[in-house]
Amino acid sequence: MEKVQVDIPGSSYPILIRHGALGDSDWLRTHLSPSLESNQLALISNEIVAPLYSDLLLDALSAYEVDTFILPDGEMHKNISSYEKIMNFLIRKRKNRSCTLIALGGGVVGDLVGFAAATYQRGVPFVQVPTTLLAQVDSSVGGKTGINHSDGKNMVGSFYQPKLVIADSHVLSSLPDRQFAAGLAEVVKYAVIEGESFFSFLETNAASIRSRSPQVLETIIKRCCEIKANIVARDEKEAGLRAVLNFGHTFGHALELLGRYSEWLHGEAISIGMLMAARVSNKELGFPREQEQRLFDLLKEFNLPVAARGETSPSISANELIEAMGMDKKTVEGEMNFVLTKGFGDVLTKQKVGNDRIAEEVQSFL
Amino acid sequence: MEKVQVDIPGSSYPILIRHGALGDSDWLRTHLSPSLESNQLALISNEIVAPLYSDLLLDALSAYEVDTFILPDGEMHKNISSYEKIMNFLIRKRKNRSCTLIALGGGVVGDLVGFAAATYQRGVPFVQVPTTLLAQVDSSVGGKTGINHSDGKNMVGSFYQPKLVIADSHVLSSLPDRQFAAGLAEVVKYAVIEGESFFSFLETNAASIRSRSPQVLETIIKRCCEIKANIVARDEKEAGLRAVLNFGHTFGHALELLGRYSEWLHGEAISIGMLMAARVSNKELGFPREQEQRLFDLLKEFNLPVAARGETSPSISANELIEAMGMDKKTVEGEMNFVLTKGFGDVLTKQKVGNDRIAEEVQSFL
Repeated sequence: MEKVQVDIPGSSYPILIRHGALGDSDWLRTHLSPSLESNQLALISNEIVAPLYSDLLLDALSAYEVDTFILPDGEMHKNISSYEKIMNFLIRKRKNRSCTLIALGGGVVGDLVGFAAATYQRGVPFVQVPTTLLAQVDSSVGGKTGINHSDGKNMVGSFYQPKLVIADSHVLSSLPDRQFAAGLAEVVKYAVIEGESFFSFLETNAASIRSRSPQVLETIIKRCCEIKANIVARDEKEAGLRAVLNFGHTFGHALELLGRYSEWLHGEAISIGMLMAARVSNKELGFPREQEQRLFDLLKEFNLPVAARGETSPSISANELIEAMGMDKKTVEGEMNFVLTKGFGDVLTKQKVGNDRIAEEVQSFL
Repeated sequence: MEKVQVDIPGSSYPILIRHGALGDSDWLRTHLSPSLESNQLALISNEIVAPLYSDLLLDALSAYEVDTFILPDGEMHKNISSYEKIMNFLIRKRKNRSCTLIALGGGVVGDLVGFAAATYQRGVPFVQVPTTLLAQVDSSVGGKTGINHSDGKNMVGSFYQPKLVIADSHVLSSLPDRQFAAGLAEVVKYAVIEGESFFSFLETNAASIRSRSPQVLETIIKRCCEIKANIVARDEKEAGLRAVLNFGHTFGHALELLGRYSEWLHGEAISIGMLMAARVSNKELGFPREQEQRLFDLLKEFNLPVAARGETSPSISANELIEAMGMDKKTVEGEMNFVLTKGFGDVLTKQKVGNDRIAEEVQSFL
């Protein structure tokens, strides 16, 4: 077992990373119990994940009073309607303030359940059990919760930390290739933030990563969680530093919005978004062409999209993209702020770039 | 001007109490400006209050980019549908993370806008401008935000502190008698919590309170805010102590629910709820009969209901009341917890009382 501690003032918690954790009910019980405030639990999952893993969790929690709620799968369900359904479920089941919510699933389940936990009766404890690579390395850590609005991603939400995160790298073996690759996009993002050593680790181990070697996966999950925990501990509410985690996300969120949250998975949009950010970074900050090429090659090696077009993709113009970015939360006073990089390990926030420059540089990806 | 500072770690803020504040645009501008993060403002009010006071605020804020949103009036609109409308408005107006929301109205507006501020883009600043006595002495202070659910009051919400509260006692002169009396119920609650000196102040000054003398109103508002600020500073998230503020509220919330949030104003339900709590307190903790009588007399003198019945009121049975209380947030592990008092100034939380006792004692109020 690997353990990463997230040290946020007032809400410190551990991330436990263990291959096969969900299949070991003794281990689960031992590590979950200290985080549960009372006998009341609500297990919330989705229609894909629940049939695979909910029985394992329920078995370990047989001594508790657990009610289960199943959401439909997909980013398009991360909306106020699903949120309201979770609230209705909790109220109908008469869950009280000491009830712990357990989020079993990917980023959509984690974000929705986190927001429900943040706001049910003004806040109840919750535990994240992420089952996708993306959720294990990124969305389940750091306490960003939220739902999408038809006009923008994560427009509604709050900062609310879980009591515990359990990441079982074994469940990644059942993850569809596309989902797995999407998670790797965030892994690559961490490498751009962290620097040469992690980036070259990914390049060197690309083949065993693609074949989902348990050992290399655990290393990667731990590394990403450490990087994120370190940043989040210093800036929980994204007053400054934390925004480096949004590298590629301003572009990516706009692509997701334009694709109506169904065209691209989050990680796929981030892959394209990082390449756009890298292109602009090269022009604005002199991000080395050679690193830009390595980023392109690694994303391609991980089977991630490197342009926002395909046989079924909608055709997007540079202006549409800029318009969609304007709605993104990182806009301040009408000026467009970007997270750019001068080189691996040197990501800068609050970089103002004119619309003309953006339009020019994103063109080749559309 | 009177000033009460609420000292919560990480979110300290002032309550400014001033007769005629809303009519003095220079004063308003001076005192609002330091709390505004950017040029972007959203003024949210209701159909009753906006025509009376929004122009005064807008006049003082003419240098800012202000968009206004008007809600319908009434507790029955403190629901997820109004919340969603506020979110849609903010998104449509492209308000960003540095936009300050201003809540101009009573408790419903304050709770809704507070919850919107807590969750729009994971949290934006907000300012409370309470226009009812109840909001000025109670709901605008302390950061409890939330919305009701058809099965329970404030079931959804969060703890989220404003940047500033401005209480203009002058606006109370336009408050309907029923609304004014409802606010006095919370004032009486503070006196029960605080003790003999504030309680007898209210008894002695009952006539000038009823006639809304500006001076006595300012004194009362300040005193209540001080009591609440002192409690909230020590227990923001109601881990323990803060629950004393719920004296009369377990009963009161159940009455509100059974009256579908339209039969009684919040303060009216709290008036009856306090008398129920006092009755049970007498039996369980020996709360003096003499003080119980004084509580009854003072509430009556303030034109508040002292029983849950009337020509138009629904007939409620003790069992219905107990069932409705079971849904209240203060339930822990199926046991019913009450906030009771041994005497003025000595309110106790987490008092477990059996359903039989409750049924017996509430009967005379139904």
